[in-house]
Amino acid sequence: MNFLEKVEKRKKEVENVLVIGLDTNVERLPRKFPKDAKGVYEYNKYLIESTRDIACAYKINSAFYEMLGPEGMQTMYKTRELIGDDIPTIYDAKRGDISSTAEAYAKAAFEFYGFDSITLSPYMGSDVAGPFLKYEDKYLFFVCLSTNPSAADFEYHGNPSLYLQVAVFAASCHEKCGLVIGATVADSLNEVHEVSPKSLILVPGIGTQGGKVQDVMNSEAREKVLVNVSRSIIFASDPRTVAEKYAKELKA
Amino acid sequence: MNFLEKVEKRKKEVENVLVIGLDTNVERLPRKFPKDAKGVYEYNKYLIESTRDIACAYKINSAFYEMLGPEGMQTMYKTRELIGDDIPTIYDAKRGDISSTAEAYAKAAFEFYGFDSITLSPYMGSDVAGPFLKYEDKYLFFVCLSTNPSAADFEYHGNPSLYLQVAVFAASCHEKCGLVIGATVADSLNEVHEVSPKSLILVPGIGTQGGKVQDVMNSEAREKVLVNVSRSIIFASDPRTVAEKYAKELKA
Repeated sequence: MNFLEKVEKRKKEVENVLVIGLDTNVERLPRKFPKDAKGVYEYNKYLIESTRDIACAYKINSAFYEMLGPEGMQTMYKTRELIGDDIPTIYDAKRGDISSTAEAYAKAAFEFYGFDSITLSPYMGSDVAGPFLKYEDKYLFFVCLSTNPSAADFEYHGNPSLYLQVAVFAASCHEKCGLVIGATVADSLNEVHEVSPKSLILVPGIGTQGGKVQDVMNSEAREKVLVNVSRSIIFASDPRTVAEKYAKELKA
Repeated sequence: MNFLEKVEKRKKEVENVLVIGLDTNVERLPRKFPKDAKGVYEYNKYLIESTRDIACAYKINSAFYEMLGPEGMQTMYKTRELIGDDIPTIYDAKRGDISSTAEAYAKAAFEFYGFDSITLSPYMGSDVAGPFLKYEDKYLFFVCLSTNPSAADFEYHGNPSLYLQVAVFAASCHEKCGLVIGATVADSLNEVHEVSPKSLILVPGIGTQGGKVQDVMNSEAREKVLVNVSRSIIFASDPRTVAEKYAKELKA
């Protein structure tokens, strides 16, 4: 079963498109968890057990594990293991390199840690994707259009804008490349979806970052979106209740 | 002492601008080293001991450590420790994210592993740099123009080309941002150097990747370049001899 099929199957099971982002920053753990890599693992365990029947997918943000050194990577490994193989996983790593380096990143993501998909940064062009595309059942999400103030620096550069060129590239990728589009620019969802209609669109920026769920779910891309919520769920006093609320708003 | 000062000091000591890239791919270790994270450490130890008095800086390519999981990161940590504090270090990670994620990547690179500088992917704009710039003595290298066939996909997009916009950004960075420019496009070195004359320019692609040393050392950017050689040195039958040859060609 490839990633697209796995996502479709899961969407039918949970009837939503909610991706829960395990951006588990050690500095924000609730008081009763130790502030170290083990605490992050224990908290992830609690989060996954509380939301396993709700989440359409889990996204693991590499940075929060890397900052804890080798033990953090051990926590990432064990967290990935805990999720199991029925729920799609997204490795949010935004890697972007070429040649043997890209091969090594692909090995890390898909072989060592066993993630189903990864986010990549497209700056260096299609060569960034090459080694990742060799894994038949895996999937790539290219950063396309983001929500941060400086998105305009480069993403909108040129005419057509750079982000549309990235969408054109994703469209050429034999249904193995999706795109990351910030939710606060939901208007652009339609535009990008038109360019690359078969691409999954990973939408971050809901919740803490301020994007609007309705804009996303009313867009023409709604059949293709996966909507990530991280901090608003994982650092809520009752993560399950908040996840349920989002799952309801993000009905598949 | 900040990174620029550290590099200047080191250039005077070794009289060259050779960066030795520890792209230590476990699959290419000489036969007598075990093919695992410990073998990579042992081989790095041999490489560093053989070239310590020659190298102007060491560059550690994160991918080859990440592919070995937590033990690979332990090897990266110990390799960094072995290099010590007198020789500048570059963490080749091409990270590119924003907000609290970028903060976490900066913590990993500068606090946990203690690198002096890092390579970053500029796609998401100046926000990518923000958290890294807060570390006073550290330095960033933005991927600007690369040597791979698909560099043209996005790096040359727009008019002026995207890579020149990235150079403009680096120029605005209060002397804390350098650029990565592929050696096989040495003509562009002059162009980028003109846009951001104070930026260090990290030049990969010498040796195995086919760039020409003379082109780089004759360019107007020669006072600012650091030239990386990875595989041609580290997988040579006698790494020291090859490093010496490059050091001579790359006279500061």
